[in-house]
Amino acid sequence: MSGIPFNIAATDGAARTGEIVFPRGEIRTPAFMPVGTAATVKALYADQVRATGADIVLGNVYHLMLRPGAERVAALGGLHKFMGWQRPILTDSGGFQVMSLSALRKLDRDGVTFRSHVDGSTHRLTPERSVEIQRLLGSDVTMQLDECVRLPAPKAEVERAMLLSADWAERSKVAFGDQEGRALFGIVQGGDSADLRKESARRLVDLGFDGYAVGGLAVGEPQETMLAMIEETIPELTSARPRYLMGVGTPDDLLKCVARGVDMFDCVMPTRAGRHGQVFTRFGKMNLKNARHADDPRPLDEESDCPAARDYSRAYLHHLVKTGEILGMMLLSWVNVAYYQSLMAGARRAIAAGAFSDYAAATTAAWEKGEK
Amino acid sequence: MSGIPFNIAATDGAARTGEIVFPRGEIRTPAFMPVGTAATVKALYADQVRATGADIVLGNVYHLMLRPGAERVAALGGLHKFMGWQRPILTDSGGFQVMSLSALRKLDRDGVTFRSHVDGSTHRLTPERSVEIQRLLGSDVTMQLDECVRLPAPKAEVERAMLLSADWAERSKVAFGDQEGRALFGIVQGGDSADLRKESARRLVDLGFDGYAVGGLAVGEPQETMLAMIEETIPELTSARPRYLMGVGTPDDLLKCVARGVDMFDCVMPTRAGRHGQVFTRFGKMNLKNARHADDPRPLDEESDCPAARDYSRAYLHHLVKTGEILGMMLLSWVNVAYYQSLMAGARRAIAAGAFSDYAAATTAAWEKGEK
Repeated sequence: MSGIPFNIAATDGAARTGEIVFPRGEIRTPAFMPVGTAATVKALYADQVRATGADIVLGNVYHLMLRPGAERVAALGGLHKFMGWQRPILTDSGGFQVMSLSALRKLDRDGVTFRSHVDGSTHRLTPERSVEIQRLLGSDVTMQLDECVRLPAPKAEVERAMLLSADWAERSKVAFGDQEGRALFGIVQGGDSADLRKESARRLVDLGFDGYAVGGLAVGEPQETMLAMIEETIPELTSARPRYLMGVGTPDDLLKCVARGVDMFDCVMPTRAGRHGQVFTRFGKMNLKNARHADDPRPLDEESDCPAARDYSRAYLHHLVKTGEILGMMLLSWVNVAYYQSLMAGARRAIAAGAFSDYAAATTAAWEKGEK
Repeated sequence: MSGIPFNIAATDGAARTGEIVFPRGEIRTPAFMPVGTAATVKALYADQVRATGADIVLGNVYHLMLRPGAERVAALGGLHKFMGWQRPILTDSGGFQVMSLSALRKLDRDGVTFRSHVDGSTHRLTPERSVEIQRLLGSDVTMQLDECVRLPAPKAEVERAMLLSADWAERSKVAFGDQEGRALFGIVQGGDSADLRKESARRLVDLGFDGYAVGGLAVGEPQETMLAMIEETIPELTSARPRYLMGVGTPDDLLKCVARGVDMFDCVMPTRAGRHGQVFTRFGKMNLKNARHADDPRPLDEESDCPAARDYSRAYLHHLVKTGEILGMMLLSWVNVAYYQSLMAGARRAIAAGAFSDYAAATTAAWEKGEK
């Protein structure tokens, strides 16, 4: 526990809005964190990301430890300076990507040994090394190393991974120690088992963390399963600390999870979709590859604050996507990151006004209606 | 001839500086035109391109006629509106790319029929159709259709292409007619033959154009051959009109050709090099892929006006290039386009001060010295 204030300004049902106050700046919650995997939010300048309203970005330990390397980043003055982002950064622990990206991983009780997907070199992550890497990077929010099980999985396997993650949480806390102005979050595991989720949450709360993440969701299960697990887990978590749902999700996921008390999100969806011709706006999801946009002089959303959504015709965006132009990826990623931020800003205002369910209903109806 | 003023403010040897005045804005010469092949200067926002000091960009008829199509661009309000660039645009005629990119091209005296490299569809370009396409796009500078021969080539072949290009120049002029506020440029051909270059230039001057381009150079011949051809050609061209060397070149090519009286340049080099990890700065050419940059905290050029050259460490740029991040292409393209513009701005100031040869010598010496 490092004394990072989380000031809840208003609640509305289970939803809440507030600020997490770091030395590098406050994070307005509910918050969406754009993902800057390899020290860049893909296809965007850092100052653009900030201008969309993002208070914090995420970096991936797995990618950064392989390239450029944590010690190198530290010698260069830390991740903030390296990537030109002066506000808070949350780093994940590397566990999820080790499971999903690396080759020949071998897990034991002490940690995990794996081969880099880049060059085949061998690396090892332990809870202690993950904390150390995140300290070297200069993360404002350190995540514990955990083991994330792909669903569906046998309950015994889910339980084993949950218990291992709980053990690693404790070791992470010891390794982290007291770091003034920096936070350490524990991660709830337990797959699709309500019992295991609750036990995982209780173990973490007993240890005491600056914030609590829910991991191992949005890994292939239906949205109802995800929501059910959140509903089971959230009441077990200390309401005074931030709750972070990892790797989620669609705009619809975000609204439904904010309604259930989640404060923080991250997802590659806005940038990944933007690189593949898809945009999210207040009219819903749209695929710019579709030929129906080829002659359309309208912008994506003339009322948007984002220049990419407001100042370029759909015809031009369609053309850029069809021709594979980098500018197309730049503009659509910008549109999406801006939309996610505006969605969260709207949620914060609605919660403060005690009108979140109306906001969520109106927003969802607008997506479904589209422009017709 | 459409009455576009070209005001030469100063000369220094064969070099000159001035302004070409279009309704959409003036072009300060010597000018470097960034290439916006498919209605985008690759990996840059239009307002960034402008902020580097570019007064004009180039669009490629070949690419634009295939995608999105000239009639479509016209229906959408023209190329300026389409791509969000409000200052002048020069479009090439399509001839060069038909020869270099298309499949199964068949040339006759009337024009050229070819298959699209994108989808295999059949298209035809004639001098008249090229002028029409450029009118549909809304080009400020229309280029005549020409035939560019790859060197080395037999003189008879070079002569045939030169005479065909001269015939097409005449037809282009008829087709262009009078277009208030828009310019038509003829293109000198003649390969590496001084006789043919001179004859080509004289034929164009007899016809009378708003400006004169030198085409068919930088197509594989040594720099000395290119410079020799320019020296033979320039004196034949009307000194009162702009001279444009097509598709050139390196920073060194630019200085040497400015010294010989060239007013305008275009080249994909700054953006293409930027997408492949190479930068041009006042210290010369540098490959950011090189491992020696991995731990280097210095910016590329702390004195640059370009944020990409000034505000990011070489270590970070190296990392972005090594990991194939789009931001790396964005930043290095920006560095290069900005450097080319600063090189031209320096040339303009030096010519105005009667010190161009000193400027060229000092600039070249700085490239050769590097940073040591």
